[in-house]
Amino acid sequence: LPKTLVPEDLPKIERIMKKLIGQNLKFERLEMSVDKAIKEFKKQGQIYKVELLEELKKEGEKRVSLYQTGKFLDLCRGPHIQSSKKAGAFKLTHLAGAYWKGDEKNKMLTRIYGLAFSTPKELDDYLKMLVEAEKRDHRKLGQELDLFSFDEEFGQGLPLWHPKGAMLRQIMEDFVLKEYLKRGYQLVRTPHIARLEIFKTSGHWNFYRESMYSPMKIENEDYIIKPMNCPGHIKIYKTQLRSYRDLPIRYTELGTVYRYEKSGTLHGLTRVRGFTQDDAHIICTPSQLKQELIEVIKLTKYILKTFGFSQFEVSLSVRDPLNKDKYLGDDKHWQLAEKSLAEAIRAERWQFRIEEGEAVFYGPKMDIKVTDAIGRPWQISTLQVDFNLPERFDLVYIDEKGKKQRPLMLHRALLGSLERFTGLLIEHFAGAFPTWLSPVQVKIIPVGKDHFKYSQKLAEDFRTNNFRVEVDDLNETVGYKIRKAEKQKVPYMLVIGDKETKGKILNVRHRDEKEVKRMTVRKFIERIRKEIQERK
Amino acid sequence: LPKTLVPEDLPKIERIMKKLIGQNLKFERLEMSVDKAIKEFKKQGQIYKVELLEELKKEGEKRVSLYQTGKFLDLCRGPHIQSSKKAGAFKLTHLAGAYWKGDEKNKMLTRIYGLAFSTPKELDDYLKMLVEAEKRDHRKLGQELDLFSFDEEFGQGLPLWHPKGAMLRQIMEDFVLKEYLKRGYQLVRTPHIARLEIFKTSGHWNFYRESMYSPMKIENEDYIIKPMNCPGHIKIYKTQLRSYRDLPIRYTELGTVYRYEKSGTLHGLTRVRGFTQDDAHIICTPSQLKQELIEVIKLTKYILKTFGFSQFEVSLSVRDPLNKDKYLGDDKHWQLAEKSLAEAIRAERWQFRIEEGEAVFYGPKMDIKVTDAIGRPWQISTLQVDFNLPERFDLVYIDEKGKKQRPLMLHRALLGSLERFTGLLIEHFAGAFPTWLSPVQVKIIPVGKDHFKYSQKLAEDFRTNNFRVEVDDLNETVGYKIRKAEKQKVPYMLVIGDKETKGKILNVRHRDEKEVKRMTVRKFIERIRKEIQERK
Repeated sequence: LPKTLVPEDLPKIERIMKKLIGQNLKFERLEMSVDKAIKEFKKQGQIYKVELLEELKKEGEKRVSLYQTGKFLDLCRGPHIQSSKKAGAFKLTHLAGAYWKGDEKNKMLTRIYGLAFSTPKELDDYLKMLVEAEKRDHRKLGQELDLFSFDEEFGQGLPLWHPKGAMLRQIMEDFVLKEYLKRGYQLVRTPHIARLEIFKTSGHWNFYRESMYSPMKIENEDYIIKPMNCPGHIKIYKTQLRSYRDLPIRYTELGTVYRYEKSGTLHGLTRVRGFTQDDAHIICTPSQLKQELIEVIKLTKYILKTFGFSQFEVSLSVRDPLNKDKYLGDDKHWQLAEKSLAEAIRAERWQFRIEEGEAVFYGPKMDIKVTDAIGRPWQISTLQVDFNLPERFDLVYIDEKGKKQRPLMLHRALLGSLERFTGLLIEHFAGAFPTWLSPVQVKIIPVGKDHFKYSQKLAEDFRTNNFRVEVDDLNETVGYKIRKAEKQKVPYMLVIGDKETKGKILNVRHRDEKEVKRMTVRKFIERIRKEIQERK
Repeated sequence: LPKTLVPEDLPKIERIMKKLIGQNLKFERLEMSVDKAIKEFKKQGQIYKVELLEELKKEGEKRVSLYQTGKFLDLCRGPHIQSSKKAGAFKLTHLAGAYWKGDEKNKMLTRIYGLAFSTPKELDDYLKMLVEAEKRDHRKLGQELDLFSFDEEFGQGLPLWHPKGAMLRQIMEDFVLKEYLKRGYQLVRTPHIARLEIFKTSGHWNFYRESMYSPMKIENEDYIIKPMNCPGHIKIYKTQLRSYRDLPIRYTELGTVYRYEKSGTLHGLTRVRGFTQDDAHIICTPSQLKQELIEVIKLTKYILKTFGFSQFEVSLSVRDPLNKDKYLGDDKHWQLAEKSLAEAIRAERWQFRIEEGEAVFYGPKMDIKVTDAIGRPWQISTLQVDFNLPERFDLVYIDEKGKKQRPLMLHRALLGSLERFTGLLIEHFAGAFPTWLSPVQVKIIPVGKDHFKYSQKLAEDFRTNNFRVEVDDLNETVGYKIRKAEKQKVPYMLVIGDKETKGKILNVRHRDEKEVKRMTVRKFIERIRKEIQERK
């Protein structure tokens, strides 16, 4: 009798599969006319296979290949393993309803999902990674750690940052901004809406429209919520006539942009409809290009390492050398930019892959993926040369001889989208952020009411030292409070009882250490300050 | 012969006016029928007066009053001064074309603008203020100091912040945010677009639509660029069931909002189409209300004083007691809120004006105007009690008895719009910001190439001390470089020549001091550090 599959059936099916594999069944290739195959499957009552074959016939197909083992016959273009024994390690993972051919007008069938690897070890590693990944899922941790949420009425793909998440963001932004300013970047700020006109000038409305939201009318002019920060930065450049002595100019903005993503593809913080980039545009002369690229790559490495990443996958996207006319900008500049990019990456002694034909139409680019704690790559940093926008907006500078010249322009975002990067950080650290990034660095846990006052005084001391500290003064047991703090992944917990109140010695419990350490307040402050300064 | 008036005619007209005033001409009141008046003015060829009278007639008017002196007869409802000698001090200021009755289909006439005061002293003071105000105009200074610009192609009323302006903004934001966090506010962050739905729930779409931009479609749903930050903060509150022990909750966000202003009313930074508020929403129990109001008022005073303002005009807007049904929220809460607000203002020993009937429909509010350096009031801070949104979004907390209760909500913005506040700061300080706010605090001016290296070293030292410093290493004369720095209103200028390079003694020139002072590097660093710390 037909029955609906339930997840509990999967192990049973797996058992049967294993038994069949053990029988070393041979698979034999057959070929026959489409008509014969239709007849055969009609006899078997395989209506979906018949439907597929009828379609092949309509398309003019005459013959099909099939594979057979015992009585079981199936359509397969091949190749196919010759014997069931050759099947590697596998696991059935879950069931889901799926419309026949993905069309919701068709009947819903049940699809069984599974994984297959060559060896049991590979399968096992992958399954372990999946379990680990699920534990680290930033959507789950984001809720548990009270970092952010999404709200149906507010809108899909639009994260609301709760206090602890907003603090994390703030720390990240303060850090990168300070590093950029130190290196001669200049902070700018541009509005989130602009006339559609300017995105026509930039070319985005032509080439990027499917990612842009529909215009809104203001006094009969079309305005648009910005998908990119470039036009604003360019306009600031253009408020003065620049000289070669003013270059390079490096404008940076923590710029929030809005881009369309299908609701079906939205995913926590890693795919959203609005996000903030640690964006920058560098405008320089051709002779400055290489040094600028070197500096950006150095800075990228420094920033990503500080956030705890040490493994990078670097790719350099260049022109398709056989289709040079697909690209904007002259040959000389392309050669300079591709060569400079490659040399700049080599200067960092980084391995990189060259992706021919993967350059954007307006220039070559470098992309960096970081590998997280469980081995997954995440696309993060990007550095692009742009020959297009300087042309379109007629950017110029006055050279040494007093002549107008066209500058080059670089786009770069090192963390990329701060939303996405936060998602990565959550999963990379499984929510246990290093002290310098932790929204709450120290949790003070008074044993009883008598210890509230001293706990508050301690907290004040710590705040004077710019530590982020909370006192848990609720009327609960110490054990419960410690468990709460552990769940919140606070790096340091200080239980304050009689001894601590009188002795001024702290009872220091670290998130990752089994042992409770005793130390003076001063030593504790020194320890944390050092940890924060070194961003470990 | 008819001639077009030109500005040069104004002094001539003034002279004639003064002569007439000196003749002590009497003005006599007449009354006559409208018909007779029409006849009279027709005779004089006064076609516009005739037109006005014809209209009065159509409206059913029978008689009009006129005033006469010598042969000159004019319409005037009265009262009128009896003699020309009674005219006070006056000045004709400018001319402008104006369509008759403001209708562009009518003929354009020339309008003469003037000022009149009771005494010459008052007129003189006002004229001096106008000259001073023009010098301080933030639109002019904003360009001279390279702080911000507007761009036609980008969009009207949408400021682009140049590096120095963006730095000023950043300093302001860092300062207020730090002060808010110190006082138990929690940072949050919400997107700039949201579903229209949520602004229907909040009531903004009904009551505030004329200030909102038109919706954009995302997958058949209407989205809108936010005019207010409240809904996002409310949604964050609602992600958990809150207890009375969690209250007060104070969410703060440097939230950028977009509101429609007619292009004709846009004015530099003080009236824009997008601006950032130092916004916060405090959610509290009724018994916490008064203390929260007191704390907000204290904080406001502290913040405004730090920015250099000491004179405030405070107003408290309450219900119209005769029209209580115009307002939302129950009587008990209105009484509590109005009383608490008044007491909180009194606690600060502030004078305030009660504006009956000026409360918003959803609650009473306090507004603060600051007086700038040349005596002009600017509407800046606002503190509002809101009975409406907690209702509409069904906000609750669990009270001591485990019962659901409705909390109160406060809106507050202390700087108001940061754009507007920056405009105020520029005009208040005439661009010469105190050291802690100055985008560039120290300008180092090497005399010649030999002094570049030491100048750079000094700059590095200062940067280590977190000072914002620039070295002017262009090939120009010292005098020219000093004048440039003075024009940029940099507080400190250091000219570095042979003596300074060898002797390690600085030649310190302050923007506001005639005298050049000599001091050690260490003493100079101490002086500036103190100035920044004390925010003087």
